[in-house]
Amino acid sequence: MTDFTRFDGRAVNDLRPVRITRGFTTNPAGSVLVEFGDTRVMCTASVSVGVPRFKRDSGEGWLTAEYAMLPSATAERMPREAMRGKVKGRTHEISRLVGRSLRAAVDLRALGENTVNIDCDVLQADGGTRTAAITGAYVALADALAVLKERGVVPGEPLLDPVAAVSVGIIDGVPCLDLPYEEDSRADVDMNVVMTAEGRFVEIQGTGEHAEFSRAELNDLLDLAEGGLYDLIDLQRAALDGALGEAVTLGEWS
Amino acid sequence: MTDFTRFDGRAVNDLRPVRITRGFTTNPAGSVLVEFGDTRVMCTASVSVGVPRFKRDSGEGWLTAEYAMLPSATAERMPREAMRGKVKGRTHEISRLVGRSLRAAVDLRALGENTVNIDCDVLQADGGTRTAAITGAYVALADALAVLKERGVVPGEPLLDPVAAVSVGIIDGVPCLDLPYEEDSRADVDMNVVMTAEGRFVEIQGTGEHAEFSRAELNDLLDLAEGGLYDLIDLQRAALDGALGEAVTLGEWS
Amino acid sequence: MTDFTRFDGRAVNDLRPVRITRGFTTNPAGSVLVEFGDTRVMCTASVSVGVPRFKRDSGEGWLTAEYAMLPSATAERMPREAMRGKVKGRTHEISRLVGRSLRAAVDLRALGENTVNIDCDVLQADGGTRTAAITGAYVALADALAVLKERGVVPGEPLLDPVAAVSVGIIDGVPCLDLPYEEDSRADVDMNVVMTAEGRFVEIQGTGEHAEFSRAELNDLLDLAEGGLYDLIDLQRAALDGALGEAVTLGEWS
Amino acid sequence: MTDFTRFDGRAVNDLRPVRITRGFTTNPAGSVLVEFGDTRVMCTASVSVGVPRFKRDSGEGWLTAEYAMLPSATAERMPREAMRGKVKGRTHEISRLVGRSLRAAVDLRALGENTVNIDCDVLQADGGTRTAAITGAYVALADALAVLKERGVVPGEPLLDPVAAVSVGIIDGVPCLDLPYEEDSRADVDMNVVMTAEGRFVEIQGTGEHAEFSRAELNDLLDLAEGGLYDLIDLQRAALDGALGEAVTLGEWS
Amino acid sequence: MTDFTRFDGRAVNDLRPVRITRGFTTNPAGSVLVEFGDTRVMCTASVSVGVPRFKRDSGEGWLTAEYAMLPSATAERMPREAMRGKVKGRTHEISRLVGRSLRAAVDLRALGENTVNIDCDVLQADGGTRTAAITGAYVALADALAVLKERGVVPGEPLLDPVAAVSVGIIDGVPCLDLPYEEDSRADVDMNVVMTAEGRFVEIQGTGEHAEFSRAELNDLLDLAEGGLYDLIDLQRAALDGALGEAVTLGEWS
Amino acid sequence: MTDFTRFDGRAVNDLRPVRITRGFTTNPAGSVLVEFGDTRVMCTASVSVGVPRFKRDSGEGWLTAEYAMLPSATAERMPREAMRGKVKGRTHEISRLVGRSLRAAVDLRALGENTVNIDCDVLQADGGTRTAAITGAYVALADALAVLKERGVVPGEPLLDPVAAVSVGIIDGVPCLDLPYEEDSRADVDMNVVMTAEGRFVEIQGTGEHAEFSRAELNDLLDLAEGGLYDLIDLQRAALDGALGEAVTLGEWS
Repeated sequence: MTDFTRFDGRAVNDLRPVRITRGFTTNPAGSVLVEFGDTRVMCTASVSVGVPRFKRDSGEGWLTAEYAMLPSATAERMPREAMRGKVKGRTHEISRLVGRSLRAAVDLRALGENTVNIDCDVLQADGGTRTAAITGAYVALADALAVLKERGVVPGEPLLDPVAAVSVGIIDGVPCLDLPYEEDSRADVDMNVVMTAEGRFVEIQGTGEHAEFSRAELNDLLDLAEGGLYDLIDLQRAALDGALGEAVTLGEWS
Repeated sequence: MTDFTRFDGRAVNDLRPVRITRGFTTNPAGSVLVEFGDTRVMCTASVSVGVPRFKRDSGEGWLTAEYAMLPSATAERMPREAMRGKVKGRTHEISRLVGRSLRAAVDLRALGENTVNIDCDVLQADGGTRTAAITGAYVALADALAVLKERGVVPGEPLLDPVAAVSVGIIDGVPCLDLPYEEDSRADVDMNVVMTAEGRFVEIQGTGEHAEFSRAELNDLLDLAEGGLYDLIDLQRAALDGALGEAVTLGEWS
Repeated sequence: MTDFTRFDGRAVNDLRPVRITRGFTTNPAGSVLVEFGDTRVMCTASVSVGVPRFKRDSGEGWLTAEYAMLPSATAERMPREAMRGKVKGRTHEISRLVGRSLRAAVDLRALGENTVNIDCDVLQADGGTRTAAITGAYVALADALAVLKERGVVPGEPLLDPVAAVSVGIIDGVPCLDLPYEEDSRADVDMNVVMTAEGRFVEIQGTGEHAEFSRAELNDLLDLAEGGLYDLIDLQRAALDGALGEAVTLGEWS
Repeated sequence: MTDFTRFDGRAVNDLRPVRITRGFTTNPAGSVLVEFGDTRVMCTASVSVGVPRFKRDSGEGWLTAEYAMLPSATAERMPREAMRGKVKGRTHEISRLVGRSLRAAVDLRALGENTVNIDCDVLQADGGTRTAAITGAYVALADALAVLKERGVVPGEPLLDPVAAVSVGIIDGVPCLDLPYEEDSRADVDMNVVMTAEGRFVEIQGTGEHAEFSRAELNDLLDLAEGGLYDLIDLQRAALDGALGEAVTLGEWS
Repeated sequence: MTDFTRFDGRAVNDLRPVRITRGFTTNPAGSVLVEFGDTRVMCTASVSVGVPRFKRDSGEGWLTAEYAMLPSATAERMPREAMRGKVKGRTHEISRLVGRSLRAAVDLRALGENTVNIDCDVLQADGGTRTAAITGAYVALADALAVLKERGVVPGEPLLDPVAAVSVGIIDGVPCLDLPYEEDSRADVDMNVVMTAEGRFVEIQGTGEHAEFSRAELNDLLDLAEGGLYDLIDLQRAALDGALGEAVTLGEWS
Repeated sequence: MTDFTRFDGRAVNDLRPVRITRGFTTNPAGSVLVEFGDTRVMCTASVSVGVPRFKRDSGEGWLTAEYAMLPSATAERMPREAMRGKVKGRTHEISRLVGRSLRAAVDLRALGENTVNIDCDVLQADGGTRTAAITGAYVALADALAVLKERGVVPGEPLLDPVAAVSVGIIDGVPCLDLPYEEDSRADVDMNVVMTAEGRFVEIQGTGEHAEFSRAELNDLLDLAEGGLYDLIDLQRAALDGALGEAVTLGEWS
């Protein structure tokens, strides 16, 4: 696009190397390790019979999500939220985003009165943890729903087409795809885009804390995001076609 | 736009009647009652000397915001968060949004090492409480900064051009401006747009919980939002040109 | 009584100007704005079917109350209790007082197994917030019970005669009625009196933090309180005889 | 007074047997076990150098108090407040009452910038725990201040004349002194009176939950209370004249 | 054993004077004051019908325990856990230890679906509070179970043989029995041993914070502990053979 | 030892396969993945300048530890402690154990006034999580201290000889080494042993919830533990002699 050089040598429209490993742990029905460069998130999907009160007797299921960072995930250790006795606003906000995004990938009626719990625990953080979480959680969700179907406890086919997420932002006036921490922390504008395989948006969250953005800049950012998201969706599909425990990758891993 | 009829008779690109009353209470430096139809929010701006730790010795000020609903604001009484002992994720999320939005209206360096506390307390809720809160809080902020300037304690002119917010959404396939609760609760897509007087975006948050949205629909929603936001910004300016204690209005109030 | 001059020019046995506005908001069954001078409290009464566990199967209803101050209600902004994660002792204590006082105005058996929730939210504080809250809450309670009766869900007439409250105190040795913050903060003795229309006491709370008080002083304070309370009870009755949305006043409002 | 018979055979103006034991434990500067019949409260006074922030550099000291019930103090075991993670409103309210009452017995200026912590822990509850707590805490306070004086760390004589407390109430229409639980739970009116040795009131808290009370009834209750309080104050003085570890008693102990 | 002299003159294998007083308070079914020297713990056992969820329909009962220190129990007053809003790790840990230890003294099947609540509240702390608590709680438990049997609500004989506890430690290289605070705070190794009357271990917790310990030292410590524990078990039996309200003692009480 | 067959085919004195991977993540100074069979714990050591208040100006450093389980670590998903708003007693207890154990491996004086934070996050739980955590944390600690030494900020050599931990228990009367969940949940006696490379005990915690244990059984359990611990210490040393990112293993990994 431009001859602007990113600090890690990528082009502005390049994703970082991405890796998805299914069957990362054995206990939950779905367990995935997703890596966007140095960002590493363990995404699991557990299933329980029954639904929360507000869905009872609706004939529909529910999906809820919790996102958290291990205290050692960041360069400077963060205090553990359980020890502080309360969850930070940022954590709540991302948990809610992950939940809404993944519900777009489930037919709640076909799920029957079952509940899926998505847990996204960040083992290592280098920017884009929420978008990696959503992208990986779709794969964990698919595995968990497959287990449910095998057991014959869901009335229909609850899994819908893939949902993936990616961050975009404007760095020194240049729109860029998939920001690591070094870029994210000094971006003028920061946007997270969640999209389905059909190219429809589930969520767009754009924030200009250091500078506002014009309609034209918004369009540039969405173009970049769409490009990356189709690649991520292809990788999600490849992971689900592969074998449990095998990793699928995008880009160069050393 | 279309011949679609909204339940309250408005055109799809009409705001509800809006009213801004400055000097609603006397204690904080800025105190505004803002009404978007039946939604009524008390927005105040208090100022204190000094800044939070992460801003200390930066030569810059800070702005922080808290949003809350009175328990009796909704049709069905909601439990009080202070009694539950914790703040809900939704409350945190909106508080953070209000804070980010208003910081776009302050030159933190010109503010000097002072902190502005914005409080938005919803007295009555009928949809769009967060956008009303942002719109009203700008006026309260302006009043509080004027007091600071009079006292001669700020090094420069900290107030920037107006920032306003409005909601848009897709109801039965039709994009609509400024959704009351009745529409909001059944909207397929719901979007909040925060914009400056120059027409640049501070924040865009679009969510498709019941249905996703295309790029074209996104553009229609943004067109609607821009129209309403310029009207709200005019009203903010009229309020600040008027006298304390007088209300300025937009649209028909019975 | 004496030639002692109060800082706002009132006689020692004068109330501040008082105003009661019914129908202040539309959502709860009863919603009242009560003003004692610059003290302004929004009092609402919501009703729900059923009773707390300790009243279950008693054939009686229950009434509970919560009092709170908005953070911007005071000259110096107070931290929000929901953010601190716990309610202050003072808040609990006043909530309990409001609840006990209003229960004296309800025939719990005639209420049937329904629960009334009183919420008193202080929008602006200038002394006497708890007594204003009780006085206003009685009117909100009356409106809420009238709605219940119309719906035909209460077995009898649950509303009893008015209950009102006022503060009295000793300032520089002189007993005074209805103390604003300026007097309250330096009073030697501070007393809150809650009384029914028949002149019987529901609650007397007298405290001498800076100086103790004699039996004779107690009697002087009670005389003053009784005078003010009969006026407040007349005003409550006038408000309930008037139209929803109209304000009734006592004393001079500029 | 009347031929009304109380369930434990006492006359309406009789206190229960009372016992005060100084030096009940050895760690805090003052430690007292106070018994009003079967109500048994351990009252301690600990002293620390320095004062809370709001008193800093005032040249004055401070006194603060905490009241609590052991879970096994009542007939039916109560959940431990520390396990619930929050303190009940009733506990807060009584702690504040004890603190205000005991501050009437201290000359804060003569105390210098030292803080006294009063702890009243109810070992066994049978009505009147808060009044027993105040009565016993005065004796513990006196012992703690004596230790401070010996150490030469207080600038003056901080101990003022005794403060004692007692409950009175109306049972089946008859005013009675010092109510045990059996009477307290069915009293129409319940009042706690805190008084100094000079017969001046520190606090009067009268509540009519089941029935209101007239001015005449109020006077009868205060007459009863005064009688009991002078006896309790004599006992406090006898305890302080006696030896540490010895108990002084009032009335018949079997 | 050696000519090592302990600061209180005891031999290394001597317990402090011990006293057990049954019927210390009247409300719970079992109430015991246990003293190990200056350590004084009130141990109570309350019984309720029904069991926690995880035991429901098991035909078995349950026993749970809570340990706490009064704030004035220690030389320096400790903040009250209920005021901090959370229980310290140490408190949780000891509560769990007391619960496990006492469950070894109950036949849960013979108890039927009833729950015993043990409360151990430390009135005065001088080392060994958890071991005194376990030793005293057995006696309170025995009293409570006797009450249950009298009422005919337990299907069998739930009380098993005595369980007692004692601390041992290595001070300046010398193994010692029953450490008071002065020794405990400087011990190289600290061990708590819980044992049944048959000499079988219920719990061994040995910690070397300042120095590790060898297998030989472990054996010396266990020898010491066993000696003390048999004496404590004899005392528990003597207490239960005696009359309620009478104290039984071991060693010299001044 | 006996012909008793364990459910996974191991001999009673066999450890499960063990694997230690250094450099598992890059952010903290030390980061280790430790696996005992299906139990998988991420152990990290972060270092910060300064010490907690109680160590200030002591010339010594400090080490503190936090243990936690991811909600998806267990077969049945566990609620997240941060969402419950408080940490469970079990979590506190294990965190304290890990801290005490690792402090035995640090010369606090040679560390200078620096603090080491150990975090042990269980990714997958199958029994023995606390012993795996201690064993892995020693290796992470060694890596973190090496980084500190390179930076020249520690006055001496703070790392002491290895500390490792293992569980032992009695299953159906037979003492066994290193219990997975299946055995742990039905063990009569359960013991955790923490030992230094010199064979001295740092901590012994033996609990007989379902049955007590004799002195002879205790000795058998300690014999088993010592055998396993020497093997684990050899593996810790091999890991530290190897390269970062390489795994060292003990036993057969499929």
